[in-house]
Amino acid sequence: MSPTTHGKGYGISDTKNYTDFSVQSYPLKTPGPHDVTLDIDFCGVCGSDVHTVTGGWGGLNADFVVPGHEIIGKVTHVGAEVTEFKVGQRVGVGAQVFGCLKCERCKSDNENYCAEQVDTYNAKYPDGVLAQGGYSSSIRVHDRWVFTIPEAIKSEDAAPMLCAGLTVYSPLLRNGAGPGKTVGIVGIGGLGHFAIQFAKALGARVIVFSHSPSKKADCLSLGADEFVTTDKEGFEKPFFDKIDYILSCADVETIPIGELASTLKVGGLVTSVGLPDGEWKGLQPQLMASNGSSIGCSHIGSKKEANAMLKLAAEKGIKPIIDEILPMSKAGDAIQRVKDNKVRYRFVLKQDLK
Amino acid sequence: MSPTTHGKGYGISDTKNYTDFSVQSYPLKTPGPHDVTLDIDFCGVCGSDVHTVTGGWGGLNADFVVPGHEIIGKVTHVGAEVTEFKVGQRVGVGAQVFGCLKCERCKSDNENYCAEQVDTYNAKYPDGVLAQGGYSSSIRVHDRWVFTIPEAIKSEDAAPMLCAGLTVYSPLLRNGAGPGKTVGIVGIGGLGHFAIQFAKALGARVIVFSHSPSKKADCLSLGADEFVTTDKEGFEKPFFDKIDYILSCADVETIPIGELASTLKVGGLVTSVGLPDGEWKGLQPQLMASNGSSIGCSHIGSKKEANAMLKLAAEKGIKPIIDEILPMSKAGDAIQRVKDNKVRYRFVLKQDLK
Repeated sequence: MSPTTHGKGYGISDTKNYTDFSVQSYPLKTPGPHDVTLDIDFCGVCGSDVHTVTGGWGGLNADFVVPGHEIIGKVTHVGAEVTEFKVGQRVGVGAQVFGCLKCERCKSDNENYCAEQVDTYNAKYPDGVLAQGGYSSSIRVHDRWVFTIPEAIKSEDAAPMLCAGLTVYSPLLRNGAGPGKTVGIVGIGGLGHFAIQFAKALGARVIVFSHSPSKKADCLSLGADEFVTTDKEGFEKPFFDKIDYILSCADVETIPIGELASTLKVGGLVTSVGLPDGEWKGLQPQLMASNGSSIGCSHIGSKKEANAMLKLAAEKGIKPIIDEILPMSKAGDAIQRVKDNKVRYRFVLKQDLK
Repeated sequence: MSPTTHGKGYGISDTKNYTDFSVQSYPLKTPGPHDVTLDIDFCGVCGSDVHTVTGGWGGLNADFVVPGHEIIGKVTHVGAEVTEFKVGQRVGVGAQVFGCLKCERCKSDNENYCAEQVDTYNAKYPDGVLAQGGYSSSIRVHDRWVFTIPEAIKSEDAAPMLCAGLTVYSPLLRNGAGPGKTVGIVGIGGLGHFAIQFAKALGARVIVFSHSPSKKADCLSLGADEFVTTDKEGFEKPFFDKIDYILSCADVETIPIGELASTLKVGGLVTSVGLPDGEWKGLQPQLMASNGSSIGCSHIGSKKEANAMLKLAAEKGIKPIIDEILPMSKAGDAIQRVKDNKVRYRFVLKQDLK
C-alpha cells in the first residue's frame, strides 16, 4: 500500500495576521524507504511556534506555514527499510525531521547539530518539498526523527516532551547535571517546569530562580529544592560559588545574567535555551571574568537523548502541567494566549480535522 | 633587618591626563610574615594599564595610581615564614597580589578567582593600604603571588609572561588545549602571540584568526599551523566543525563572533581574555545554538599554573616579541603608543629610578 500523499493542516500566510489560521491541503514529504507516516492525535504549542508565526525569528519561508513540533500520533505506513516502527504504533516527532546522516555530527549522536538539518516546519526538504508541522492531520518523517512513546506516558503528556522536554534534557545531561551537582533553573514555563523535573530525576540539587513568586508552590511540588525570586536586589548573594550549572529557559532578552552568573563555581556555565528575537543585552565580558564562567546555547537533542528522556520520564512519572487541551481549530487563540503570557506551562492541541 | 617601608613610582592622578606620569613616594604593603619585598628591574606594559589609566574600566581608586603588573625584580627582604624565596633571588609578580587564602577557591588552586582578591594596582589591601604597581622602585607581595623565574628566561622576556602569558596559558590548559585538539587563536598582540606559543607547546594544532595580514609571518614563526585573515566574507567556512576551542585575545567590542563560533565542534567554547570597556555587541544567542557552543571569560591564572607556564617556557624557549625596552620614565609615551595600537606585541619598561 502506498502511503498518504497529502496532509491537511491549520496554517497561516502572514506574520502580521498570525492568529488567522485556515485549513489547507499540501503534499507530505516525498516518501523514502526510511519514512514513517503518522496520523496526528495531539500537538503541543511551543514558544517557537509564536516566534515563527509572529516573524520574530524572521519571515515565513512559504505562502502557507503549518506550525507545531510536539507531535504524537499513530503510524499509518512505514517505508521498506523501517524496522523500528509498525503500523498502529503510537509515536512522537519533535522539532527536527531530517539531517544528512552522513556527517560527523549525525554519526556521533549529534544529529541535532547537523548543518543540513530540516526543521519540522517553516523549512524545506532538499528536494524542495515543504516541511509542515503538527497542527495537522498527518506527517511523514524519516525514522531517525521518530520516537517510541513508552506506554506509561499519556499522549497529551508526551507531546510537550518532544520539544520542551528534550530541549532541557539534552543540555542538562551533556553538562553533568547529576548527583553531587547543584543546578540553577531560570525561567519557569513550558521548558523550565520540565527542567526542574529532569534535573531532579538526574540526581542534581535544583534551585529555581524566577521572577514569578506565584510559581513557587508548583516548582517545589515539581521537585525544586529551593525557590528564589529574582526581583530583590542581592537575591544571588547567598548562592555565591554554590552552583555548578545554570539552565536558563527565560525567553527574554534581559535576564539578570550578571547576578546569575556570579553564583557559578569557577569555570561554570549558563546554557540559554530561551532564544529571544534579538541580541543579548547587558552582556559584559567582565561579568564572566570573576569566576571564569561562560554562557551558551543548546539546540533540542538527539534521538539517543530523546529515547533516554522518555524512559526516565516513564520511570519517574515526569509529565507536563497542561493548562488546557484545546481543539486544533483553536490554534489562533492558543498562539495569542502564549504570546500574551497567558499560559503558565503548556497548551496542547487535540486533533479535530478527522 | 626591617624591610623597606616605602616605594617610589611613576603614577598618574587623573584619567583625563593619562600620560602625565609623575614620581611619588608611598607606603608599601604592611609587612607580614609571608611577604616578599623586591627591587624592581623590569615591568611590562599591559593593555590593562591603558584601560585603567584612561578610565575605560572605571575611575581611579586613589589620588595617585602607579600601574604595572608584569614585574621582575630581586628579593631584598623576606618575612619570617617565607621558605620559597631568598634575598637576592630573581622573582616575578603578576596581576594579583593578595587573596583570602581561606576560601574554597584559594584552597583549590583557584586563588585567581578569590572574591577578596587584591589587584596589583589601583586597589586596596583589607587594611586600607594602597596596592601600587610595577612602574616603580619596589613592591611587597605575599609569597603566594610571587613566582620563581627559571634561569633560562631573561628578565625582560619573563616580565610580560606574568600577566599576558598567564592570562592565555590558564584557559588553554583548563580547556584542554593539547594533543589531538585544534585551537583557534583570535587577535594577535601581546596576549595572542603568547597564546600561539603556549597552545603549540601544549601540543595543540593552532589556527590563527587575525585581521592583520601583516602579522602572518610572525604567527607562523611563533608556531601557528595556519593563519587566516578575518576580513574576507566566508573566511570561516573552511573551518566548519574543525575547531575544539577558541581563545580570543582581541580587545575589541566587535569581533566576528558568529563566524568564529561557527567553526567550533559541538559543545565548543570561546574564551575571551580581551576585555573591552563596554558590552559585547552583536551577540545573538542563536549564534551559539547551531553547535551548542558557549562564550566566556577567564581571569589570569593560579600560582600553580604560573609555575607550570614558566617551566614550559623555559623548556621550549617561549618568549615574547618585545617591540622596545623603554626607560620607566617613558611610561606616558608607552601608554599612549599602546592606546594608539602602535605596539605590535609588547613594550617593557626598564628601571631608571635607582
